[in-house]
Amino acid sequence: MVSSTTPKINLLKTPTQWAWVEQAITHLDIILLDHSHCERKAAGVALNLMFRYPSYAPLVRKLTLIAQEELEHFEQVNQWLDRRGILLAPLASPPYGSLLKAQIRPQEPDRLLDSLLISALIEARSHERLGLLADHCPEPDLAKFYRGLMASEARHYGVYWLIASHYFERNIIQNRLEELATVESDILANLYPEPRIHS
Amino acid sequence: MVSSTTPKINLLKTPTQWAWVEQAITHLDIILLDHSHCERKAAGVALNLMFRYPSYAPLVRKLTLIAQEELEHFEQVNQWLDRRGILLAPLASPPYGSLLKAQIRPQEPDRLLDSLLISALIEARSHERLGLLADHCPEPDLAKFYRGLMASEARHYGVYWLIASHYFERNIIQNRLEELATVESDILANLYPEPRIHS
Ligand SMILES: [Fe+2]
Ligand SMILES: [Fe+2]
Ligand SMILES: [Fe+2]
Ligand SMILES: [Fe+2]
Repeated sequence: MVSSTTPKINLLKTPTQWAWVEQAITHLDIILLDHSHCERKAAGVALNLMFRYPSYAPLVRKLTLIAQEELEHFEQVNQWLDRRGILLAPLASPPYGSLLKAQIRPQEPDRLLDSLLISALIEARSHERLGLLADHCPEPDLAKFYRGLMASEARHYGVYWLIASHYFERNIIQNRLEELATVESDILANLYPEPRIHS
Repeated sequence: MVSSTTPKINLLKTPTQWAWVEQAITHLDIILLDHSHCERKAAGVALNLMFRYPSYAPLVRKLTLIAQEELEHFEQVNQWLDRRGILLAPLASPPYGSLLKAQIRPQEPDRLLDSLLISALIEARSHERLGLLADHCPEPDLAKFYRGLMASEARHYGVYWLIASHYFERNIIQNRLEELATVESDILANLYPEPRIHS
């Protein structure tokens, strides 16, 4: 069940189920810690692509901005952890990221296309879920923080799409995106038992 | 021979030789391209340490800022490449980075100390060499750009030192720094034939 105020992200095949919202808002501290890891990983993914394709100027320039923004989000989430007395600590990742990564075909240029589209899907899902947190988080200041981050994540999935469209034809992108979006929604069909941004 | 207006960096055992300045200012385009790679690598090193020590709050928080600034430098250098019509392209690295990395002892906490001190030394050397470019670059706008970057790199080596001093005793840091600084200067004793920031 998506909240009525959250616009449907047209990349995603299935909206987040209500059980995730319940799990998340009853474990806000764990969600914040996991969110910190997600933002650092998002910066890492952007930077890795910049290292893998150092001559692809449009990719490099756009991902520089994304990596900077993810680091800014990382710092902002860490300030929330600080305020709540939550220590930075490792946290087992849900299978979401690794299952999606397993979809990346090893040969170029498939590898580039899949990497970009998976990042686009993760950003789209993050956007949707931060929106749900903004709508349903019982703490107004934290809800406002989530609302603020939403806009960037929406922009990010647009940027990954735009980079893809610089290197691939529209119908090739669209077909592969359909396939990957189905996998993405299937992964989330059964709620992961631990509260996570992507459980 | 260091320029008279460039303050001696007391971490470094030996100042940069004049032959490097000549090599650099006669190959400014290659130096700019290499510099772009250096800034991206500097961001990568900071982020890698944040991934390797995710619970070390003082390290994580300080390196977040450094990674952001290196990405900002990366973008600024890429704008210079753009203005001069230089395409982003791979460039063989000089042995400097890999030889320094080979000095990192594999066992913790040695690995952390060595990683931090090698980054401090690279930042110190970058600071010294950007200063030399600021003094001797024949193009006033570019010289001004190098002058501007110098201040950040000076701050960065201070930050790496500060992080080290959070986790290690002063005499342990000082002894290891002496050893690594000697290796660093030895590596640069013979000018690498290709123009590079760290040739
Ligand atoms: Fe983010
Ligand atoms: Fe994002
Ligand atoms: Fe830098
Ligand atoms: Fe730096």
